[in-house]
Amino acid sequence: MSDIKRVVLAFSGGLDTSVILKWLQQTYNCEVVTFTADLGQGEELEPARAKAQMMGVKPEHIFIDDLKEEFVRDYIFPMMRANALYEGLYLLGTSIARPLIAKRQIEIARLVGADAVSHGATGKGNDQVRFELGYYALSPDIKVIAPWREWDLTSRSALIAFAEQHQIPVAKDKRGESPFSTDANILHTSSEGKVLEDPWEEVPDYVYSRTVNPEDAPNTPQSITVDFERGDAVAIDGVGMSPATLLAKLNDLGRAHGIGRLDLVENRFVGMKSRGMYETPGGTILHLAHRGIEQLTLDRGAAHLKDELAPRYAELLYNGMWFSPEREMLQAAIDHSQAKVSGTVRLKLYKGSVNVTGRKSPNSLYSEKVVTFEDDAGAYDQRDAEGFIKLNALRLRLLGRRDQP
Amino acid sequence: MSDIKRVVLAFSGGLDTSVILKWLQQTYNCEVVTFTADLGQGEELEPARAKAQMMGVKPEHIFIDDLKEEFVRDYIFPMMRANALYEGLYLLGTSIARPLIAKRQIEIARLVGADAVSHGATGKGNDQVRFELGYYALSPDIKVIAPWREWDLTSRSALIAFAEQHQIPVAKDKRGESPFSTDANILHTSSEGKVLEDPWEEVPDYVYSRTVNPEDAPNTPQSITVDFERGDAVAIDGVGMSPATLLAKLNDLGRAHGIGRLDLVENRFVGMKSRGMYETPGGTILHLAHRGIEQLTLDRGAAHLKDELAPRYAELLYNGMWFSPEREMLQAAIDHSQAKVSGTVRLKLYKGSVNVTGRKSPNSLYSEKVVTFEDDAGAYDQRDAEGFIKLNALRLRLLGRRDQP
Amino acid sequence: MSDIKRVVLAFSGGLDTSVILKWLQQTYNCEVVTFTADLGQGEELEPARAKAQMMGVKPEHIFIDDLKEEFVRDYIFPMMRANALYEGLYLLGTSIARPLIAKRQIEIARLVGADAVSHGATGKGNDQVRFELGYYALSPDIKVIAPWREWDLTSRSALIAFAEQHQIPVAKDKRGESPFSTDANILHTSSEGKVLEDPWEEVPDYVYSRTVNPEDAPNTPQSITVDFERGDAVAIDGVGMSPATLLAKLNDLGRAHGIGRLDLVENRFVGMKSRGMYETPGGTILHLAHRGIEQLTLDRGAAHLKDELAPRYAELLYNGMWFSPEREMLQAAIDHSQAKVSGTVRLKLYKGSVNVTGRKSPNSLYSEKVVTFEDDAGAYDQRDAEGFIKLNALRLRLLGRRDQP
Amino acid sequence: MSDIKRVVLAFSGGLDTSVILKWLQQTYNCEVVTFTADLGQGEELEPARAKAQMMGVKPEHIFIDDLKEEFVRDYIFPMMRANALYEGLYLLGTSIARPLIAKRQIEIARLVGADAVSHGATGKGNDQVRFELGYYALSPDIKVIAPWREWDLTSRSALIAFAEQHQIPVAKDKRGESPFSTDANILHTSSEGKVLEDPWEEVPDYVYSRTVNPEDAPNTPQSITVDFERGDAVAIDGVGMSPATLLAKLNDLGRAHGIGRLDLVENRFVGMKSRGMYETPGGTILHLAHRGIEQLTLDRGAAHLKDELAPRYAELLYNGMWFSPEREMLQAAIDHSQAKVSGTVRLKLYKGSVNVTGRKSPNSLYSEKVVTFEDDAGAYDQRDAEGFIKLNALRLRLLGRRDQP
Repeated sequence: MSDIKRVVLAFSGGLDTSVILKWLQQTYNCEVVTFTADLGQGEELEPARAKAQMMGVKPEHIFIDDLKEEFVRDYIFPMMRANALYEGLYLLGTSIARPLIAKRQIEIARLVGADAVSHGATGKGNDQVRFELGYYALSPDIKVIAPWREWDLTSRSALIAFAEQHQIPVAKDKRGESPFSTDANILHTSSEGKVLEDPWEEVPDYVYSRTVNPEDAPNTPQSITVDFERGDAVAIDGVGMSPATLLAKLNDLGRAHGIGRLDLVENRFVGMKSRGMYETPGGTILHLAHRGIEQLTLDRGAAHLKDELAPRYAELLYNGMWFSPEREMLQAAIDHSQAKVSGTVRLKLYKGSVNVTGRKSPNSLYSEKVVTFEDDAGAYDQRDAEGFIKLNALRLRLLGRRDQP
Repeated sequence: MSDIKRVVLAFSGGLDTSVILKWLQQTYNCEVVTFTADLGQGEELEPARAKAQMMGVKPEHIFIDDLKEEFVRDYIFPMMRANALYEGLYLLGTSIARPLIAKRQIEIARLVGADAVSHGATGKGNDQVRFELGYYALSPDIKVIAPWREWDLTSRSALIAFAEQHQIPVAKDKRGESPFSTDANILHTSSEGKVLEDPWEEVPDYVYSRTVNPEDAPNTPQSITVDFERGDAVAIDGVGMSPATLLAKLNDLGRAHGIGRLDLVENRFVGMKSRGMYETPGGTILHLAHRGIEQLTLDRGAAHLKDELAPRYAELLYNGMWFSPEREMLQAAIDHSQAKVSGTVRLKLYKGSVNVTGRKSPNSLYSEKVVTFEDDAGAYDQRDAEGFIKLNALRLRLLGRRDQP
Repeated sequence: MSDIKRVVLAFSGGLDTSVILKWLQQTYNCEVVTFTADLGQGEELEPARAKAQMMGVKPEHIFIDDLKEEFVRDYIFPMMRANALYEGLYLLGTSIARPLIAKRQIEIARLVGADAVSHGATGKGNDQVRFELGYYALSPDIKVIAPWREWDLTSRSALIAFAEQHQIPVAKDKRGESPFSTDANILHTSSEGKVLEDPWEEVPDYVYSRTVNPEDAPNTPQSITVDFERGDAVAIDGVGMSPATLLAKLNDLGRAHGIGRLDLVENRFVGMKSRGMYETPGGTILHLAHRGIEQLTLDRGAAHLKDELAPRYAELLYNGMWFSPEREMLQAAIDHSQAKVSGTVRLKLYKGSVNVTGRKSPNSLYSEKVVTFEDDAGAYDQRDAEGFIKLNALRLRLLGRRDQP
Repeated sequence: MSDIKRVVLAFSGGLDTSVILKWLQQTYNCEVVTFTADLGQGEELEPARAKAQMMGVKPEHIFIDDLKEEFVRDYIFPMMRANALYEGLYLLGTSIARPLIAKRQIEIARLVGADAVSHGATGKGNDQVRFELGYYALSPDIKVIAPWREWDLTSRSALIAFAEQHQIPVAKDKRGESPFSTDANILHTSSEGKVLEDPWEEVPDYVYSRTVNPEDAPNTPQSITVDFERGDAVAIDGVGMSPATLLAKLNDLGRAHGIGRLDLVENRFVGMKSRGMYETPGGTILHLAHRGIEQLTLDRGAAHLKDELAPRYAELLYNGMWFSPEREMLQAAIDHSQAKVSGTVRLKLYKGSVNVTGRKSPNSLYSEKVVTFEDDAGAYDQRDAEGFIKLNALRLRLLGRRDQP
């Protein structure tokens, strides 16, 4: 243990990572470098600086980075191009944030000459896997400290006792057991634990924080448009925005209309089932909108291949395999398909639901002339259908001759 | 042409298939046998009998069958077990009906010694493919007559003129061009054509027939439970029902809450894009409910394999490949997974949306003890996570050593 | 440690598992039950009984089972139906044996009331995973002892010293370091380690044990036939045989003609690459023969689906996931496809290679009439090809209109 | 028909395409432009020029292009990167040539202002599909003439009568029925028809043209090395060569050692089974060699994803979908994986078989240190295996608790 000199800690400034900070200093007798990322979680980050400094972290070793634009542009948007849904429903809001944090921690470790990295994820969840696979992929010989798998502060009271003993401020509302735990970033807020643990019990109202109850949402639907360029959203209602600004705006819209709530029992990579509640207001709109523009601009072959690859892609992200060759291969295939995925989608938001109501594109592959039952310029001859069916049927007929009574 | 003696026509009793009936008699100088199926489309079928008789079909050659239970039990339910969605969104309501109609037509053809079958699907759509692949698979040497690909009654006015000339009654509302065409059965109603042809234009209110406008749905959410046994729904709110009764009941619930509307641009098997609107009230609830019970009772390996196979399965159904060996292979895999998919799902219906709010099962694989952060009986040791991560990371570390700066 | 009372050890009777036997008795102070399986590895098993008895195992606790028929019938044949090749080349000879050993160990544990099982696989290989996943799947709360991951006898000399200290006989040829290690059963012999560790160095001649050098094989090719029923081989040259007898016979044939050698660098489940040499004489013939009969009797849709699923199936077996729901699902799909895979394949064996030279079947889907350029009875009309091509081309034409210069 | 002014014909100079040339001039009363490609089929092409001129084709309308390098570099090599095998065995030698011919025909059509293209493929095979899908993808509104689907010269004698009537020279050996038909290019020669039509009958010796009989091959094995850079072969025995030169050299080696013969019953895209014989001497070596270098340099995740995608990729090529978005997507994924696939493979050629006997690479991911049973620098701790297994087993244990007796 004693050979670790300097460790970069993913530091939120909250109670847990503050305790970890102190524990690392004590247990490893090493210098701690803190890294606090703004991923759009909606919290003030400057208090983290004060807290780190108070606990003896050198000013030049306190890193607070606004990564919102990078997060949306280089992580969320590529994932959205894939239409990725884990287990058919989950938009992967937590999974997609971990690789970026890991990447930045490794960059900082190189910058400050640290030989280790640390995080505050528990020993039962997926996040430890996602963080550490990221660390190892980007810096194969880095040392990794996962305090929750090592220490004995596993009960809430032990943790708080440790904090008090070391003059770590404990907010009043943190003294008791929280009825659930959350993770938030610009894409979503997830909640799990305690009051959510019985998958038969309905999620209590007070757990929701990012969306209004659909019943309290406006009684009038709202129509919006989203413009896409090469698979990425670039404008809302015709107003161009940066990726993070756009997603934040969609979040506002989704929040107001109660969109993006998901109550899920999912399969963790570490082998157990867990129950969580996710709120992904803007991401839910974006996902639907992207499907809408692809409907018009993506060829069937490309679309169906994407649909077949999407579950695998989602699984890789969920399992923390962002920095894996196979995720990159899938991304290369997906990105190749998006060159013409440009145009405008109109969506209706209303009391918890979002639906595409129209789409148009200069790259549309939809042709009224071809589809119409009226005459067309020879692109489609109905008589061709007979040959098409006959040859598609041929193998079934040969089978039938063999097998039918 | 003259060698066809007797043809079994899929006969709805409507104008188009009535004209086809007459046209077959004339053009092929053959006996026509009519088959009218009750698939839950919600229309009186006895008028079809009178009409057929009036047009000279022998009483013993008029078949009117109630196939609702078979349809739901042997076609819709197996498809629901697969969580099949075509192009991510469409519940395949039309696709799933065609194989059953084709199968029954072939049975009748055998019964009455017919040498041909016929249908009223157009030459540009998917249904001609689905009908005919079914025919050929089940009776490889049957003759198939597809009037819409053969005749010259391709304009509405020519069709109506032919009808009048042959004393075929034409309902007043069929005299003009219909602003869209529909297909209905117990699973869904689909609408396409004319007023729906511009994919940017919103679907007009009057096109919807199976669901109330979500804005007009009750202001209070309704909670229901659905019980499953071996992957199939068997009860609503604890009341056991036959498959078709159950789906009809879900349809009522879905209709009232405006659930299951879908505006879609899709890729037809025949190669073009088309725009359709689907209303699948009960099926939408069922799909979500099935996912809900699988979350609790299906192992991750089974669940993820199902998710990867589902797009392929959906494509096969859409393309009319129900009676293909590969669909049967996928079904065998899927059905194998459903042995323990039993239990109860609670759902909330509200103004167009349906959400799972709870699930329980005697076969649950979810374990509060294992997932909880508190102590458990040794099933999960947090220290195992380190080895798990380390070995999952090994290949990435070896890659990193080679490729990282 | 002290709470283990009785452990079932997979016991080969060789030096390593003899040392493990003693070590278990000493370290865990528990009763050891030995299980020795005849999987066709071609060794006398009775010496294992004497050795176990000599080391104090009760006679009724010594299990020696001939599992050859079960092994071939219930493990190798189902795998052969899948045409499984790991990483495109490897016939999975080691992987497929582990689940059966694990299953029998668990059965014996139940029989004798043991609370633990143990194996002699090392801590770096795949076999530990395969054994233990089998144990846990079949007996979730069994205790597993993996001595190679626990003890300090990790050098050869320490191991031999321990053996001598405990009067465990050490064969003369086991005193030195073996230049490579092997595993054998009726399907294959694998070799790895030491002299094979440099993947650039050619495998030395003396490593091969199951096949003659192709250069020393007969100068005249030999033709054989293999009959299949429902996907399984049942006869050679028209002579019906039990599964294990048949595979043994194919092994003789393959050995004589130098068939089935494979020099491979493969990816282990535990994350590293390793280099091995495999000899699978009979299995190589069987694999080709099965493909041959499928060519004639399997429909394209089934065949292509099988080809797409085969790599996944192979990966599952390699990773020790035989007793997983997803392997069973794939097996259900595969087995469904084999109902008509019956007939006769003729193969030519010659100096290391095996080739199909003919196949026939009462279930053949091949039709000379249909394929011939001469006239046929109307199953295929060349004009149908135009429509088939036109509709398959339609989406590409629409794409071309949009994207071509 | 009369509206076609100028047609570009894929013209081999043989009897069939000569007849087609004349038939086009007569039937369509149009100007014919001939295109003859050197794809390494090993025939003199200048006679085609004389013949075309003799039949009235303008000198500036006779195109004879050496496409060998483009063919190998841009078509065969990308396919080899994918390890594509159709139905597990076939190296796609015919399929891969068609897209290039189609592409060049369209280029020429643009150059000379032609409004149509034509080819000599029959109405029952795959090649008509491959040509025409290529045409339509690259020039959506081109007219396509497929004489074999149109004319009445379908018997050999009618064809020869037509030829004689129009002073088209008929080689003596073309007067009778050929006992089989062939297609050749630098990758392979395929043979099918007549004497090959009974899949039980062994392929007669005289059908083989590209390889010696293995029994007549040298009695001494030959070792060669192939160097790869980024997935493509670049040198043999250390001597760098252009793609086509390299493949030609491998063909010489393969021919001498009787390598690459394949007797196959395959499933055509048009729906029937056919039996063919393929000789792919150099390609067979290349395929194995590429797998060999990937074993060392490709990560498991990438390798397994490639293995799962390869059957689909092969099917797309076989079906003529080279110029489809989904083939391009798969290619993007595959090519992404090849960045480090560089190094040297050694292979042994002997009497019909080719085997990898060694591979080395500066990019090797194989680590003797990691794999060895001896000590290593901490990359792999055997104790990690326990946690790895335990968490992989967790879901199986939870299943077992539910389902095991």
